Amino acid sequence: MTEDGAPRVERDDDTIWITMTRGPRRNALSREHLRQLLDAFTEAGGSDATGIVLAGEGPVFSAGHDFRDVAGKPVTEVRSLLALCTELMQTIQDVPQVVLARVHALATAAGCQLVASCDLAVAAASAGFAAPGGKGGWFCHTPMVAIARNVGRKRAMELALTGDVIDARTALEWGLVNRVVPDDELDKAVRELMDRATRGSRASKAWGKQTMYAQLDRPERDAYAIAVEVMASASQLPGAREGMASFLEKRPPVWAD
Amino acid sequence: MTEDGAPRVERDDDTIWITMTRGPRRNALSREHLRQLLDAFTEAGGSDATGIVLAGEGPVFSAGHDFRDVAGKPVTEVRSLLALCTELMQTIQDVPQVVLARVHALATAAGCQLVASCDLAVAAASAGFAAPGGKGGWFCHTPMVAIARNVGRKRAMELALTGDVIDARTALEWGLVNRVVPDDELDKAVRELMDRATRGSRASKAWGKQTMYAQLDRPERDAYAIAVEVMASASQLPGAREGMASFLEKRPPVWAD
Amino acid sequence: MTEDGAPRVERDDDTIWITMTRGPRRNALSREHLRQLLDAFTEAGGSDATGIVLAGEGPVFSAGHDFRDVAGKPVTEVRSLLALCTELMQTIQDVPQVVLARVHALATAAGCQLVASCDLAVAAASAGFAAPGGKGGWFCHTPMVAIARNVGRKRAMELALTGDVIDARTALEWGLVNRVVPDDELDKAVRELMDRATRGSRASKAWGKQTMYAQLDRPERDAYAIAVEVMASASQLPGAREGMASFLEKRPPVWAD
Repeated sequence: MTEDGAPRVERDDDTIWITMTRGPRRNALSREHLRQLLDAFTEAGGSDATGIVLAGEGPVFSAGHDFRDVAGKPVTEVRSLLALCTELMQTIQDVPQVVLARVHALATAAGCQLVASCDLAVAAASAGFAAPGGKGGWFCHTPMVAIARNVGRKRAMELALTGDVIDARTALEWGLVNRVVPDDELDKAVRELMDRATRGSRASKAWGKQTMYAQLDRPERDAYAIAVEVMASASQLPGAREGMASFLEKRPPVWAD
Repeated sequence: MTEDGAPRVERDDDTIWITMTRGPRRNALSREHLRQLLDAFTEAGGSDATGIVLAGEGPVFSAGHDFRDVAGKPVTEVRSLLALCTELMQTIQDVPQVVLARVHALATAAGCQLVASCDLAVAAASAGFAAPGGKGGWFCHTPMVAIARNVGRKRAMELALTGDVIDARTALEWGLVNRVVPDDELDKAVRELMDRATRGSRASKAWGKQTMYAQLDRPERDAYAIAVEVMASASQLPGAREGMASFLEKRPPVWAD
Repeated sequence: MTEDGAPRVERDDDTIWITMTRGPRRNALSREHLRQLLDAFTEAGGSDATGIVLAGEGPVFSAGHDFRDVAGKPVTEVRSLLALCTELMQTIQDVPQVVLARVHALATAAGCQLVASCDLAVAAASAGFAAPGGKGGWFCHTPMVAIARNVGRKRAMELALTGDVIDARTALEWGLVNRVVPDDELDKAVRELMDRATRGSRASKAWGKQTMYAQLDRPERDAYAIAVEVMASASQLPGAREGMASFLEKRPPVWAD
């Protein structure tokens, strides 16, 4: 656990773990750290891994932006920081791997946005979630783009306007995370969900994940226009063919891609 | 219960029951079956019935596409199959009747999409729901268009990526169905909800349902632009006039259309 | 409590309470009442208050439109009424204050739309919510624009098609309200949530609230395009600067705007 270190990247079987190690700095998303995370996700995205776990070390998961990058800075500099941050969030959705947030503790502001932007999230019972700009300083405009798309509108407004922390159980009820488990079972639950989410053809699933983000938030007919074209093409993938053939032949599938 | 039969269409008072009878084939949505269902919905849509129940016989509600229509087929053929399937889903939303899914058992892939596309859904406690393309074969791209619009984003991703079955209780919590009842009370619950959903002026309610789908998923101001025009015109319908007149005159309404 | 009075507008510290006082008329949103509420919100919006509570006196919170304004009226007249009603709903979202609905009793049709349109809502345990056009008269087209954006799609369809009342507990589970409390603790709960939602810089928070409505319902990338620009500019606001400076200097913030 370092002061300014790059995220630790480890491969465990088919999963790459990207762990924020700036515990003493509450894993704040400084410009340097955002770039390091973006590099780590981009590199993992180009690998043959099937899943990526985003984790953090130290007392919090991530506290969001480092105010030292923002306070007193001109608008053009802040804008480029936010553009970089948004690029990280979109890269998490763009990489072909299943990305799962392992939330062991408090996730706030852009740290909460990270959780909202991952495909899946598993939280320890003692984790918490907040958009502290709601306390009345720098409003969490960009974090709320991702957070509001996970929870309902009234709940998004409550998080955004109060800045208060919700606990892991509430986050589960609101749909911000997929699982809440006792703190000491967190890694086990992360692995179990990741195993189930990454089985099968990597290529088929990657296209599936990416297309989900392309069709969400659109009027239903626009979404179908996208999904029909993709699903027709996807039927030609080796993974889709093997999935169907093994089903029809009543045998276990053998995945080649 | 036949191997390849057309859906059974029965009229019970003002409700048309469309029952999939291909139990031995798990009510798979083969090209022929999709066309039969589309015909049945189109014909029911042109009738004076007020409600349509979509039901299934046999061990599952519907298992989705019949892989024999897809495996080894060229992309143009799969595309036309998916276009036909999408036409069925959109027809369910376009018909003037209230459409209610009676889910007695497992609904998977395009079978789960059917449930998601119906206006309302009542499930037996032993029913289940899944997008099994998430196991890594042919990803459920088009089913997720409908399913993701019923449940939250993280939940949609979990269904889409794991392919795992959620039980009826979870489907209720996630908003995929409106009621879960003991298996032997399913028909009673279906009739009760349908009765309440179809009372009143058929014409007023039909326009209401159709306009809902037109405005959902749009930015709120665009949605209001649609809804204001429709609601102003709808005030001139006999049903709307009778509803208001009976209220103002403190008498029960008499519906003429 | 009067028959045709204007809403009572009272200032309590930094909060303006707008109370509908047409209890004997169930706080129906007649053309005159809509205009009075619009005036009250517009004036409160231009004040230096930080919050607005929308409340009602009498047996119901609000029963929605006054059918005497609609029954037998030509479409152009109904259209202008609905445009006025929509302007009120959008003004609630446009004013810089946090707007909180205090729902002490039944809220139906455009009355339920008011609750759905406020940023936050606190309900008494005995409150209820409905879109009674679903009983088959004049369908609640415009109310469903707001209501459907608070609850899930199947739940919206159930409210819209049945016209049935859901209780406060169900409204909480579906995300239509933020809190449900015993009837005699309603004012206390309203004040507590409003206090937390209005702390901090008024200017920062106002822009935050307004931007939320601008980005919701849009494809995520469009939403980010809006939020990045706003958040960069917002970093230059005195409130944002003070929030960050006080955090970095480990002192309580002092809000100037």
